[in-house]
Amino acid sequence: MKGFAMLEIGKTGWIEKDTPKCGPLDAIVKPLAVSPCTSDVHTVWEGALGDRHDMILGHEAVGEVVEVGAMVKEFKPGDKVIVPAITPDWGALESQAGYSTHSGGMLAGWKFSNFKDGVFAECFHVNEADANLALMPEGMDILDAVMLCDMAPTGFHGAELADVQLGDKVCVIGIGPVGLMGVAGAVLKGASELYAVGSRKVCADTALEFGATDIINYKEGDIVEQVLAKTGGKGVDRVIIAGGDADTMIQAVTMLKPGGVIGNVNYLGSGEFVKVPRVEWGCGMGHKTIRGGLMPGGRLRMEKLGSLVMTGRIKPSKLVTHKFNGFEHMEESLLLMKDKPRDLIKPVVLL
Amino acid sequence: MKGFAMLEIGKTGWIEKDTPKCGPLDAIVKPLAVSPCTSDVHTVWEGALGDRHDMILGHEAVGEVVEVGAMVKEFKPGDKVIVPAITPDWGALESQAGYSTHSGGMLAGWKFSNFKDGVFAECFHVNEADANLALMPEGMDILDAVMLCDMAPTGFHGAELADVQLGDKVCVIGIGPVGLMGVAGAVLKGASELYAVGSRKVCADTALEFGATDIINYKEGDIVEQVLAKTGGKGVDRVIIAGGDADTMIQAVTMLKPGGVIGNVNYLGSGEFVKVPRVEWGCGMGHKTIRGGLMPGGRLRMEKLGSLVMTGRIKPSKLVTHKFNGFEHMEESLLLMKDKPRDLIKPVVLL
Amino acid sequence: MKGFAMLEIGKTGWIEKDTPKCGPLDAIVKPLAVSPCTSDVHTVWEGALGDRHDMILGHEAVGEVVEVGAMVKEFKPGDKVIVPAITPDWGALESQAGYSTHSGGMLAGWKFSNFKDGVFAECFHVNEADANLALMPEGMDILDAVMLCDMAPTGFHGAELADVQLGDKVCVIGIGPVGLMGVAGAVLKGASELYAVGSRKVCADTALEFGATDIINYKEGDIVEQVLAKTGGKGVDRVIIAGGDADTMIQAVTMLKPGGVIGNVNYLGSGEFVKVPRVEWGCGMGHKTIRGGLMPGGRLRMEKLGSLVMTGRIKPSKLVTHKFNGFEHMEESLLLMKDKPRDLIKPVVLL
Amino acid sequence: MKGFAMLEIGKTGWIEKDTPKCGPLDAIVKPLAVSPCTSDVHTVWEGALGDRHDMILGHEAVGEVVEVGAMVKEFKPGDKVIVPAITPDWGALESQAGYSTHSGGMLAGWKFSNFKDGVFAECFHVNEADANLALMPEGMDILDAVMLCDMAPTGFHGAELADVQLGDKVCVIGIGPVGLMGVAGAVLKGASELYAVGSRKVCADTALEFGATDIINYKEGDIVEQVLAKTGGKGVDRVIIAGGDADTMIQAVTMLKPGGVIGNVNYLGSGEFVKVPRVEWGCGMGHKTIRGGLMPGGRLRMEKLGSLVMTGRIKPSKLVTHKFNGFEHMEESLLLMKDKPRDLIKPVVLL
Repeated sequence: MKGFAMLEIGKTGWIEKDTPKCGPLDAIVKPLAVSPCTSDVHTVWEGALGDRHDMILGHEAVGEVVEVGAMVKEFKPGDKVIVPAITPDWGALESQAGYSTHSGGMLAGWKFSNFKDGVFAECFHVNEADANLALMPEGMDILDAVMLCDMAPTGFHGAELADVQLGDKVCVIGIGPVGLMGVAGAVLKGASELYAVGSRKVCADTALEFGATDIINYKEGDIVEQVLAKTGGKGVDRVIIAGGDADTMIQAVTMLKPGGVIGNVNYLGSGEFVKVPRVEWGCGMGHKTIRGGLMPGGRLRMEKLGSLVMTGRIKPSKLVTHKFNGFEHMEESLLLMKDKPRDLIKPVVLL
Repeated sequence: MKGFAMLEIGKTGWIEKDTPKCGPLDAIVKPLAVSPCTSDVHTVWEGALGDRHDMILGHEAVGEVVEVGAMVKEFKPGDKVIVPAITPDWGALESQAGYSTHSGGMLAGWKFSNFKDGVFAECFHVNEADANLALMPEGMDILDAVMLCDMAPTGFHGAELADVQLGDKVCVIGIGPVGLMGVAGAVLKGASELYAVGSRKVCADTALEFGATDIINYKEGDIVEQVLAKTGGKGVDRVIIAGGDADTMIQAVTMLKPGGVIGNVNYLGSGEFVKVPRVEWGCGMGHKTIRGGLMPGGRLRMEKLGSLVMTGRIKPSKLVTHKFNGFEHMEESLLLMKDKPRDLIKPVVLL
Repeated sequence: MKGFAMLEIGKTGWIEKDTPKCGPLDAIVKPLAVSPCTSDVHTVWEGALGDRHDMILGHEAVGEVVEVGAMVKEFKPGDKVIVPAITPDWGALESQAGYSTHSGGMLAGWKFSNFKDGVFAECFHVNEADANLALMPEGMDILDAVMLCDMAPTGFHGAELADVQLGDKVCVIGIGPVGLMGVAGAVLKGASELYAVGSRKVCADTALEFGATDIINYKEGDIVEQVLAKTGGKGVDRVIIAGGDADTMIQAVTMLKPGGVIGNVNYLGSGEFVKVPRVEWGCGMGHKTIRGGLMPGGRLRMEKLGSLVMTGRIKPSKLVTHKFNGFEHMEESLLLMKDKPRDLIKPVVLL
Repeated sequence: MKGFAMLEIGKTGWIEKDTPKCGPLDAIVKPLAVSPCTSDVHTVWEGALGDRHDMILGHEAVGEVVEVGAMVKEFKPGDKVIVPAITPDWGALESQAGYSTHSGGMLAGWKFSNFKDGVFAECFHVNEADANLALMPEGMDILDAVMLCDMAPTGFHGAELADVQLGDKVCVIGIGPVGLMGVAGAVLKGASELYAVGSRKVCADTALEFGATDIINYKEGDIVEQVLAKTGGKGVDRVIIAGGDADTMIQAVTMLKPGGVIGNVNYLGSGEFVKVPRVEWGCGMGHKTIRGGLMPGGRLRMEKLGSLVMTGRIKPSKLVTHKFNGFEHMEESLLLMKDKPRDLIKPVVLL
């Protein structure tokens, strides 16, 4: 089969590989729609996972089941499925402890284009199919569906980590596609004032559409000062970090109230340390909790998100600014994520 | 001063009383808008609190501060304030334990027209003014404000007790004004499918407007069967009880998934026992958690709810179906709550 | 192979069955020590699970692995293992939601002598071996080990459900073997005053040894009055129910403070309703939370409990008052659990 | 009255001041036993709170009430009381949000020898006496009592922040008096293996007595390597930081499992940033939660801790290695905390 792969650091291209084998618990899926992610960019051009060779890219896909293992009970060839970016080993000790995302080791629930080939291929392998696939609901827009693989659950997880409560004031730092879903997630969990930090118009417009009450443009001054000014100097109850770099934590801690919580869902690709400002963190005693975590995957999560789409609570396809037809646009769509033109939020390739 | 009071069980009328005294931490407030509550009906006609004499009724009011005690720092005469129905003693051990609502004893945070005179008077007394009053935000519709005293926090507390999570399926039993705010609260916390149980058209219409996805009419069959039919026999993740009687718990437990949570905010006025069906409760082992609690009061809660109104997340004034001007309509408005005509959700009297 | 079985309601005996088949994820285990449980008594003599025929009994066993499936990685024949009474399907939606105990349906994580043959046999089947077995630590007393299958995790779960916090006053109702582990669990989670309700001397002595501060003998007066007298009329912060019947809830709710939590781990075998006293439950508004749940099973749980034994925090073998050698004592030991002589806490049969 | 004060940075001495005034909610207390704290050392010799002049030191005291305000109901002159180091304003918004420690601003619940004179004086002032004093239980050893003001609640809060669960493996970094109470608190919440990091013999011995299973001596090699070696490379479930400096976080994060929690109760006095190692923190996605907070104060907390002492669960007086009689030993005892001789854990001055 053909797959679009990272050939080595800094280089991508089409390769030919054997079709993956289907174990007794597994499924083989043919993609119907895929979306490249900033992580793919980190993987290829920043070598974030180290030097990988001929690894097929991609972890966001909606597809059709083409084969299932002998022990799979809930899916059959022909089923249209949403495939979460994170496909845990559900029996692992970490999963039993409530952190399936880290089953088998920190971040090891993330398998596609990390520990095995990804989804930008004629077909791909899914472990523990019964537990990791979700039927795409009848009538769901495939563009909504493909945004449920990673963008929605990651952004929403930011709101969950930050533990947004009814009436909280929330700041979302970074309003790329994940941050925008962080905005939607925070609103969905009951945020009142929501400060969205970003600068591109298409993102700001979508943030407002998703429920942001204020756009904080970092080009117009220090974002901490802007947030403090809007909150009477008190700061916010919660911060979701979905952009920036390892130093963004300094701003997040500074704008947070004592008793507040930070939820980071930004992949921090460089820097030796994430810096927590000592004094603003109450000299270690300010009850400003710092959390960060990879999205939970698996079937239940996909079903719950699907239910939010089908009841009209969220419309994640609004993220899709660029739509392509056919595998031949794979590279073009990936380069969009790399180059981030001003009108881009997220591209999708339909197959 | 004049006040509209319960004279004895079953009898109401206007009485003359001394203006309340203002202690060092307290405030005296003149009402600008009040709303009668079903609890007032229970108090007067069902003797729910026992036989009280000449007790001024009412616990939902927005008003203007007319006097403050010597130690009050944050409010002054002339301030327009939202007064929560529950005004705790914040230093009490129960408050320190996180249950200010029960400061001084179970339910004892509820003082108005319970342990002291209520708000249907020319003026009324507020304990610990700095901690229990909230400034009415500039530009807030007074009808929204008066719905924040009890209806919104009680309904929302149902959603909090039921611990609604992103994508949960929720059933709200009872869609009077509290149940409708339970619908709004569950949606605000991320419910997907929301089954609202009720029969009156005005309530059903408002439930749909507040985000219910299905109306379950108990006149059209057993509500448990209807909910199970809509959920493929699986039941719901959460139930909010905001109506019915002590036996409603049977239905709530039966329609709930293992691992689910019930949040009761319905005042259960009669019956010796609340009945939990043994088998459906997993013979004591089904992880179906049962919670019930009086709304949290105090200033912070009012400010957070106010923030939700000002950012357009909620519009509780939609509950107000009947609006009166002047104290002379006090009795008429209370009788509406007693008689519950088909077009009523909630009346307000402006002063 | 031979197994000790329920032949029909009210009748037990030895039967001959085929050795269970080992699927790719499974293990076959030969018991080294087993213990009969009150649940076995309920199953046989009260028909608690309905009319079963020739079903091998027992769900508490420590054993030796004799066979593993092709996909099992962490265990091999010869390994000595602790087998939890509850062996979930870890990929099920309920497991993903955090309730593996109910994987596949309410209580369906309980498989031994419920949905399949139990452990009172020459060998028995364990599903998802990697996730459901735990190595017995080197040097662990086998009597401690066999108490980890059900007694310790069930009693401890009572303390977890009741959410015992540092310095809480706790009442444990029922001090049979599960209740005694409830006492140990509550102390291990930081209880201060601990009122243990029971009457038999051997149980009371063990309760005191496990950290109870007071024994409440129901033969010496109403237990609620005794608890209220000892707490200055205030009641307790937490109640663990590990004995009694469906009406025990009335006492638990009555002796509980507002804001308190009840954790039930008693299997309620009869009665149509569990009764919650309305007024004492604050008319539905007292924030007295009612939880009840079957113990969590699986490997991680067994490992954590094993760690508590190996560090000397708990000594569950103190429950073992009667020790037998050889399968021929199976019936005798089960009848002990049925007849509950005054000197019995728990019997074990070594094989 | 006389008081032992910080005269300026680096200088202490006795001063004469007016007796504090007692407001309507307050009490004036005469100390019976006091203990100097490392914070007093930071305040005086490191200028941690800035340049203060003639501020009476001390925040750990047990005393006798000599005067109460007109609105105080629960205490009267002659009562022997435990005075928590943190005495919140209970009506403040932060208190209503569950963070009374930060009432009025981050860390502002800490008033003694911070915003007002401390307890090393002939008498001192306590705000909101009903909510902030606790009766010393009959028969309590005064040395236990004085350790409840700060040492026990701070150390225990480390265990609470780290959210220790039954059977968790815990590392406590730093075993001065607070860290030792962290050890006791972690054991009290159900830790199994407990690695205590320290080097002084008196501290190590007490750690073992309080339930540590292993002493990790940083003089014998990297503590992270030692902890990883003891846990088979897996690390611990929880870390309590009660010593070290701003860089200790690097070690804590590195030795922590994904899904684990760090609870910091060490006052971080210097360094611009607390450093979180990026890769070991899972590039922001490892679900390693970082918490840090000042101890909760107030009456309820003191009562709960007192209950733990009276039921024999804890014996904090074991911290007291040096005991003095009379105010004239105030300076000597403070210098002990500054110089930390090898045989010191904590000094107490009886008055």
